[in-house]
Amino acid sequence: MEDVSDFSARKLMERDIMKKIILDLDTGIDDTLALSYILGSEDAELIGITGTYGNVLLETGIRNDLNLLEMYGRPDIPVFKGVPHPSDADSFEVPDSSGIFHGRNGTGNVEVPATATRQASDKSAVDFIIESARKYSKEELVYVPTGPSTNIDAAFVKAPDIVDKLTIVMMGGALTQPGNCNPYMEANISMDPKASNRMFSTSADITMIGLDVTMQALMTKKDTQALRDVGTKAGAFLADMTDYYIDISEETDPAFQGGCNLHDPLAAAVALDPTLVTTFPIDLMVETEGPSIGRTIGDPTRLLSQPKNTKVALGVDAERFTSQFMERLLKLAATVD
Amino acid sequence: MEDVSDFSARKLMERDIMKKIILDLDTGIDDTLALSYILGSEDAELIGITGTYGNVLLETGIRNDLNLLEMYGRPDIPVFKGVPHPSDADSFEVPDSSGIFHGRNGTGNVEVPATATRQASDKSAVDFIIESARKYSKEELVYVPTGPSTNIDAAFVKAPDIVDKLTIVMMGGALTQPGNCNPYMEANISMDPKASNRMFSTSADITMIGLDVTMQALMTKKDTQALRDVGTKAGAFLADMTDYYIDISEETDPAFQGGCNLHDPLAAAVALDPTLVTTFPIDLMVETEGPSIGRTIGDPTRLLSQPKNTKVALGVDAERFTSQFMERLLKLAATVD
Repeated sequence: MEDVSDFSARKLMERDIMKKIILDLDTGIDDTLALSYILGSEDAELIGITGTYGNVLLETGIRNDLNLLEMYGRPDIPVFKGVPHPSDADSFEVPDSSGIFHGRNGTGNVEVPATATRQASDKSAVDFIIESARKYSKEELVYVPTGPSTNIDAAFVKAPDIVDKLTIVMMGGALTQPGNCNPYMEANISMDPKASNRMFSTSADITMIGLDVTMQALMTKKDTQALRDVGTKAGAFLADMTDYYIDISEETDPAFQGGCNLHDPLAAAVALDPTLVTTFPIDLMVETEGPSIGRTIGDPTRLLSQPKNTKVALGVDAERFTSQFMERLLKLAATVD
Repeated sequence: MEDVSDFSARKLMERDIMKKIILDLDTGIDDTLALSYILGSEDAELIGITGTYGNVLLETGIRNDLNLLEMYGRPDIPVFKGVPHPSDADSFEVPDSSGIFHGRNGTGNVEVPATATRQASDKSAVDFIIESARKYSKEELVYVPTGPSTNIDAAFVKAPDIVDKLTIVMMGGALTQPGNCNPYMEANISMDPKASNRMFSTSADITMIGLDVTMQALMTKKDTQALRDVGTKAGAFLADMTDYYIDISEETDPAFQGGCNLHDPLAAAVALDPTLVTTFPIDLMVETEGPSIGRTIGDPTRLLSQPKNTKVALGVDAERFTSQFMERLLKLAATVD
C-alpha cells in the first residue's frame, strides 16, 4: 500500500524523466540554439555550461553563454572555463571558416540583447565535469559536447574513474557521409582529433550525433519568421542570428537543402529523448595523422569486440525533432523579453 | 475454395523460397566458396555464372568456373564471358595483391580436381543478365556480383529497362570500416569505381555486403580440417585452397582475427536469406577521382531524397551464417568425389 500523493507522484515523475544536462559549448550559432532548446525543455535541468573553443575563442564563447543566460533570466546557471586550445597545442586561432559560418562574435554578428555582469566560475570546466560525474549516476547525467573533445578528454585523463559514470551525447563526426571541413573531416572533430580518438577508445557510453543525421534536420526562414513574430527581443535575436546562418549556408553549401542544419540542437534533443534517432553500435577511431586526419571510421582492430561503446546515429525522425524544437523555442522566446 | 494438394503446396513453397541466382564471379578463392555455397543450397537455383575480371583475369576465372562446375557434377550450368576490363580501360592486369591473396591460378595455387572439356557460352554475360532480368521478376531473380560492377553497369547502359527488374546483392565497398586496398578503397570497387558509382546512382535495388560485415564472418583451420575429413577430392581441394587463404590473411592482415574473411560467400548467403544481416538504407556514391578514389560514402546531394535505393549491411548474424555455410559445404563436398 503506497501513499501516492500528487506531490510524490510528481517527484517520481521528475526523477524518471528529468535529466541533468551539462552543455559543453563553443557558442556558436547552433550552440546558441542548443542552449535555447535545453532551457525551453521542461524535462531538462541544465546544471552547468562548460566552455570550449572552436567556432569562437573560449573567451568569446563564455561571454556569449553568460549573456544568453542573462537574456533568458537564468543567471543561476554556472558557466565554467574549459581548456582554451587543442590537447596537443598551446594556443588556438579561430579558423576562417568558423568566422564565416558563425560570424565574428559567434552569434552571426547579431548582438545578444542582454549583458551579464557576472563572470565565469573560478572552478575549471574539467573539475566541474569530474565532480558532476561522481555526484550523479550515468542515468541522471548527460554530458553534451557540441565542440571539440578536449574538455572530456582532459577530464578522463585527470580522473579515469569517471569514464563509465556519465552518458555522452556528442555532436561531431561523420560516418556515412563526407565531412564538412573536407571529404573526411567534420568541424568539431577537426579541432582536436587526438582527444576525440582517445575518448572513443575508452569504454565511455557515447552517442555520436554526426553529419549523418544533423544534415537531415533543417531550420528555415519560415521558422525564423515565427520566432520574430513572437515579438520579444529574444525572439528577434534568435531569428536574426539564424537568418545569418541560413544565408551563409545557402552561399557556401553546394548541397543546400533550403535551410540551415540543426547540428548542435539535435544532440541536445537526443540527450533528452534518445528515441529521436536510430543508432548503430560500433567501436570508432579517429584518424590522427595523414591526408584524412579527423576521419571518424570503424576501428578494424575492435570489429569483433563486445560490447561496443559508441552508438552512431544513422536515422532521425527529423519531423518530430524539428516540430518539437520549434515549439520549445517559440515558448521560450515568449517567456522573456 | 482452393485445392491445396501436397503437390501444389510444395510448388507454392518452391515459388516462395526458391531463388534464381546469377553469380558474377572473378574466381578467386572466396568466389569459389560462394559458388560452392550456392550449389549446396537447396533453396537456390543457379541459372548461370557471368564471368568478370579482378582477382584473376577473365579467362582464368572462366576456366575456374567451368572446372569447378565439372567437379561438382553440374556441367549443365552455363558460364558466360563478361567484359574483360574496367569500363574506362582497354585492358586489365591482375594487381600484385590479388595474385598474392588468391594465388596465381585464383584457387590458392591448388588445382581444381576436375577439368572441363566444354567452353563458356557464345552469349555474352551482359546479354545473359539482360535476358534473365526481362524473363524473371525482381522477386525471383537475384544477381550476385562478387567482383567489379563492370558487367551490371554495361547491362544497365545497354538495357536501361532492366534497372528495376532484378535484385542485386553485391560483395564490395566499405562504409563504416576502412578499405582493404588502402584506408578508403575496397578491392572490388577499386577495379572500376566509375561503373560502381553509375550503378549506385540508378534506382536499382542494391544490397551492399561490404567489409562492414564480411570481416565479421570467419572461416578457420578447424573448418578446413572438417572439409578435409569428408574424404573426397572436393573436400580436400576446398580445404587446401582455403588454408592458403587463411595463411596469407595471417601474414598480411595486421587485424587478423584467427581466420579468413568470408567476403563473397556472405553476399551469396544474403541473396538467399536477407535476414542474416541488418541493413541501413542510404543513397551511396563512389569517389571516382582524387586521393580517396574508390571510397563508398553517402551522397550528400541525395541525403534527403526518398526512397533510398541501396541497403548497406551493417550487422550480421555471423554465427548463424558460418554454421549454415559450413553445413552446406560439408554436405556438398560429401556428394561428389
